[in-house]
Amino acid sequence: MKIGEKHFQSIWVKENDPSTIQVIDQRYLPFQFIIKDLKSPEDAIYAISEMVVRGAPLIGVTAAFGVYLAVLKYKKSKNAEIGIQESVNKIRDSRPTAVNLATAVDIMLKAIQCGQNMDEKLQISFDTAVRFMEVEALASKNIGIFGKDILELIAKKKNGSPVNILTHCNAGWLATVDYGTATAPIYMAHDQGVPVHVWVDETRPRNQGARLTAWELGKHGISHSIIVDNAGGHLMQMGKVDIVIVGSDRTALNGDTANKIGTYLKALAAKDNSVPFYVALPVSSIDWTLQEGLNNIPIEERSEDEVHFMDGLTTQGKVEQIRLTPERSNAVNYGFDVTPAKLITGLITDKGVCKANKQEIKRFAP
Amino acid sequence: MKIGEKHFQSIWVKENDPSTIQVIDQRYLPFQFIIKDLKSPEDAIYAISEMVVRGAPLIGVTAAFGVYLAVLKYKKSKNAEIGIQESVNKIRDSRPTAVNLATAVDIMLKAIQCGQNMDEKLQISFDTAVRFMEVEALASKNIGIFGKDILELIAKKKNGSPVNILTHCNAGWLATVDYGTATAPIYMAHDQGVPVHVWVDETRPRNQGARLTAWELGKHGISHSIIVDNAGGHLMQMGKVDIVIVGSDRTALNGDTANKIGTYLKALAAKDNSVPFYVALPVSSIDWTLQEGLNNIPIEERSEDEVHFMDGLTTQGKVEQIRLTPERSNAVNYGFDVTPAKLITGLITDKGVCKANKQEIKRFAP
Repeated sequence: MKIGEKHFQSIWVKENDPSTIQVIDQRYLPFQFIIKDLKSPEDAIYAISEMVVRGAPLIGVTAAFGVYLAVLKYKKSKNAEIGIQESVNKIRDSRPTAVNLATAVDIMLKAIQCGQNMDEKLQISFDTAVRFMEVEALASKNIGIFGKDILELIAKKKNGSPVNILTHCNAGWLATVDYGTATAPIYMAHDQGVPVHVWVDETRPRNQGARLTAWELGKHGISHSIIVDNAGGHLMQMGKVDIVIVGSDRTALNGDTANKIGTYLKALAAKDNSVPFYVALPVSSIDWTLQEGLNNIPIEERSEDEVHFMDGLTTQGKVEQIRLTPERSNAVNYGFDVTPAKLITGLITDKGVCKANKQEIKRFAP
Repeated sequence: MKIGEKHFQSIWVKENDPSTIQVIDQRYLPFQFIIKDLKSPEDAIYAISEMVVRGAPLIGVTAAFGVYLAVLKYKKSKNAEIGIQESVNKIRDSRPTAVNLATAVDIMLKAIQCGQNMDEKLQISFDTAVRFMEVEALASKNIGIFGKDILELIAKKKNGSPVNILTHCNAGWLATVDYGTATAPIYMAHDQGVPVHVWVDETRPRNQGARLTAWELGKHGISHSIIVDNAGGHLMQMGKVDIVIVGSDRTALNGDTANKIGTYLKALAAKDNSVPFYVALPVSSIDWTLQEGLNNIPIEERSEDEVHFMDGLTTQGKVEQIRLTPERSNAVNYGFDVTPAKLITGLITDKGVCKANKQEIKRFAP
């Protein structure tokens, strides 16, 4: 999407230099905008493990390019196959739970096998990574196309006054390649003249809403207001939310959806106030092996330091970390929760919109 | 309650010096423990308006002592009555919405009128303020006595494993004189050997949970874990919450309760997971003129800077403020929400426990 007047993706091949992949360093947003070069498999591994890039789809694409960079690095060495394989193993281990990462690596390995020699393998790995990136962007765009219709319908009912969309965490273009998942319908609607305003949940503890979603919406010129995670229920009670759209880390066959911690609370409030609650996701985020999500999706427990500490910009313009809590207090930090399908109005996927139940979801089975 | 081995209130008359009232300066908690002397009506006004003290009951007590300090200041001046009246007006205006403040000032003024001369007025104002403080502490203690029974019953069912209580914001002894409201049953249960563990909602944007509730529980030796406001629903889904207890800023006759923003979301999750949800409050927080709360209690919209900025302790041990959000993003900041009575299991008051409906609440009418 746009940063000012220029169109950006979260990852791209450097112009006139196919040996360099470029990404936006998301660790410094929204305070600094830094583009980082990835020139080796080690650079790609660092980018994934240190969260230069985040978001399952973007991690997958970065991993694909990581494999390409491994072929590039080792293609002239004696033990090319071994060097590549060792790099690939490290790429696969660079983040513990992202399914897209393993998928990307597998696709790349399979493709490379078709090359008769190292030059062919290099070309194939480059082409495959680029195509992987383009397919990812296209999936987001299709989510946008299907979801835009929903927003347009609400806008018509509101006689052209802005559609108020509430979103949680960052399921934006920074987490994918372009468009995002939850944000794709919003960008698409906005670009086609549908008036929108976004309530951006801050999303403690890591503040991906306040830091990333607010930043990318602002840069694209979309009207938005940051709210604390506590506020969404009250806004819905007051009729200030027309629709909730969130992303998904994993959706079970019955529609139960694991997403950033706090999503469940917003879904409850949406239900209580008859506000439509949609999950936007590529079909690749559906776990076809999982009959039900509640009690079956393992929930990551993360470091309590994410609750104790926060970083931001001091009045001197320096990024600094501060402690928020008494020194001897414990904290507990779960990364996700599961929203039961009964609270979900529908899924907006790259293959179309469907209800959150087994029968409808199965239509999209591969 | 206790800070280490010593018993504290949030406000008290300095030992051997009845012309000095002392309070804990809550602006610096949990990072620094500072006791502040109030020696003049101006000191009391500053303490209230600058949030040295906060929490409706404590604001009321501070205002009562403020009136006493005004009598003390002007008792020998020619225009004593005028000086006192001017001070009292300023005290009344020191915070915009706290009902307890006006109530306290009215009680004090009425009492003073009975004095035949300035010496008598001084003695009456001192005695009345002290009694006002004691009554406030007693109300909290009674909430504790009634609420403790509920926790004890749960503990019995759990065969002595800790009762997990979730609370939101600070309805602790720092907000009252002693015991608190939501925390009173917890302190009472703990002191009588009932095992408890408290999930402390951080409570963005002002973090009263992470800063104050965690601090006071820790100092009293009560097991607790700080969580982000997003986490409560997931904890309830996992069966890790036995009961929710929150405070009240204002409760309507039908039981609808205005409390810190985000309370409503926890009440929804409690209902969805069959977790009992109690509001603890002195009967003085019931608004007998209000038939229903939803749509009738005005909700304060506060400065958006509370969302944009946060302060805490740097690694160098300095309290510093940082910005969390992109510079050009808006924020919206509502202070409270209203939890409908249908989500409330019961009210724990200083007069007894009752259901959240008109018929039962009316039993406590003055």
